[in-house]
Amino acid sequence: MSDIINKKELFNNHPLQGREALFIIKIGGNIIDDENKLASFIQSFIAIQGNKILIHGGGKLATKLAKELNVEQQMIDGRRITDSETLKIVTMVYAGYINKNIVAKLQSHNCNAVGLTGADGNIIKAHKRPLKNGIDYGYVGDVDEVNTLFIQNLLQQKIAVVLAPITVDDKGQLLNTNADTIAQETAKAMSKLYNVTLIYSFEKAGVLLDVNNESTVIKSINPEFYSQLKKEKKIFEGMIPKLDNAFEALQSGVNKVIIGKAEELQNLIDGKSGTSIMQ
Amino acid sequence: MSDIINKKELFNNHPLQGREALFIIKIGGNIIDDENKLASFIQSFIAIQGNKILIHGGGKLATKLAKELNVEQQMIDGRRITDSETLKIVTMVYAGYINKNIVAKLQSHNCNAVGLTGADGNIIKAHKRPLKNGIDYGYVGDVDEVNTLFIQNLLQQKIAVVLAPITVDDKGQLLNTNADTIAQETAKAMSKLYNVTLIYSFEKAGVLLDVNNESTVIKSINPEFYSQLKKEKKIFEGMIPKLDNAFEALQSGVNKVIIGKAEELQNLIDGKSGTSIMQ
Repeated sequence: MSDIINKKELFNNHPLQGREALFIIKIGGNIIDDENKLASFIQSFIAIQGNKILIHGGGKLATKLAKELNVEQQMIDGRRITDSETLKIVTMVYAGYINKNIVAKLQSHNCNAVGLTGADGNIIKAHKRPLKNGIDYGYVGDVDEVNTLFIQNLLQQKIAVVLAPITVDDKGQLLNTNADTIAQETAKAMSKLYNVTLIYSFEKAGVLLDVNNESTVIKSINPEFYSQLKKEKKIFEGMIPKLDNAFEALQSGVNKVIIGKAEELQNLIDGKSGTSIMQ
Repeated sequence: MSDIINKKELFNNHPLQGREALFIIKIGGNIIDDENKLASFIQSFIAIQGNKILIHGGGKLATKLAKELNVEQQMIDGRRITDSETLKIVTMVYAGYINKNIVAKLQSHNCNAVGLTGADGNIIKAHKRPLKNGIDYGYVGDVDEVNTLFIQNLLQQKIAVVLAPITVDDKGQLLNTNADTIAQETAKAMSKLYNVTLIYSFEKAGVLLDVNNESTVIKSINPEFYSQLKKEKKIFEGMIPKLDNAFEALQSGVNKVIIGKAEELQNLIDGKSGTSIMQ
């Protein structure tokens, strides 16, 4: 009897013990733009056993549609200034075209999936970003809260959740939201219920020392090594926000963050490829 | 004791007794196209207590976008021939722009809602329509099956379901599907679990004897009266498929079908306005 109690105490003392695993996978824009890479990614996603969430952006498709519709696009530091016409475009492309095509492909491989935005089931509440350094980003959302219980309900039904990076504020205004941020905030919130692995998957094999040489993958990065790499300017600039997000996610309860190739998800999970971010 | 058993028998013998009510509301295209009418409809939808499903099409927005993108549209008998470019457009407009804007507006009024296509949770399986009278409708779906259990799960969480008329076949091909048909098939399938009222809501006060006179609403139509009205050519041609569908739905277990004004849903339900279709 006392043995049972001791085991129970041990169980309760370890925060991740006994929790189910959840894989949250952000897919990069260059994968979405390439039909063959997207198909390989989907095979790789389907092969993951257990609870999983896929988060996608829109690649270049929103930019392409904006051009066809003569809606001028303004980017500042890689972020899209979202006026009302651009919001309409990203809502159509992200929540409509890309989201539903991914869901349909998953269904055809017997992977039950539901595609959602932050508005659906109030999954992700956000607010319109206030002026930053005098820049008005327009209809861009900063995340306030993730509704973990509704997501958990879907996962418990063995449904994969496919999230488009559109959120909503409390006045019913849709907002364009960075997909990396959605992945990070979802991972942080869900780590209260699951043992979460957050994967940023893209076209490269991981974080590279030489951005043109796939064999220079850094196997693991901890905060000290990261400081050193940044100091020596050995980190590709586009990778810095991803890594900053990764460390913040780990500090907020996410178990593991991995960066690597979209077609090799199981290898990333098994530690056979990619870059692991460690505390 | 025997009294209790008798009551139970009575209960089981009546197919609708004890089942919860479910309101399935199809919203007409002219309402979607008009911002003020859409806002009134949404207020009216929110006011309905209990289980509810909203089914929308795309109004003229898909046609407008196709024009802007120089994608030629071909209509035969009011049905859109759906080539791959048109499929992309309707997926963007129906599943993206319209669906998510409706969901966001519902959320802002504290009506929890989830927007879905047939692909999500495999809610509506379909097949590509075969050639009909030599006409190839393209990527158009005919409904095979409605996944009632997933919809029921959402309704049990007090979530309103908002359905866009896009379905999927077993190969993962998205298909453009008539919204009236989706409403009818969903109503038929859900009537195995609920006491279903199916409402076709639009800009008119009901089925009119004189299409230009709102005061000529026919209060109720049964099959005999319908035959007579058709024979005397007193039914507006566009209304015939809706009425045919309504009678078929009633024969398949739907409890009640009502046709009437989108802004007056509660009055339609209470029998204070609109046209009731009866067996």
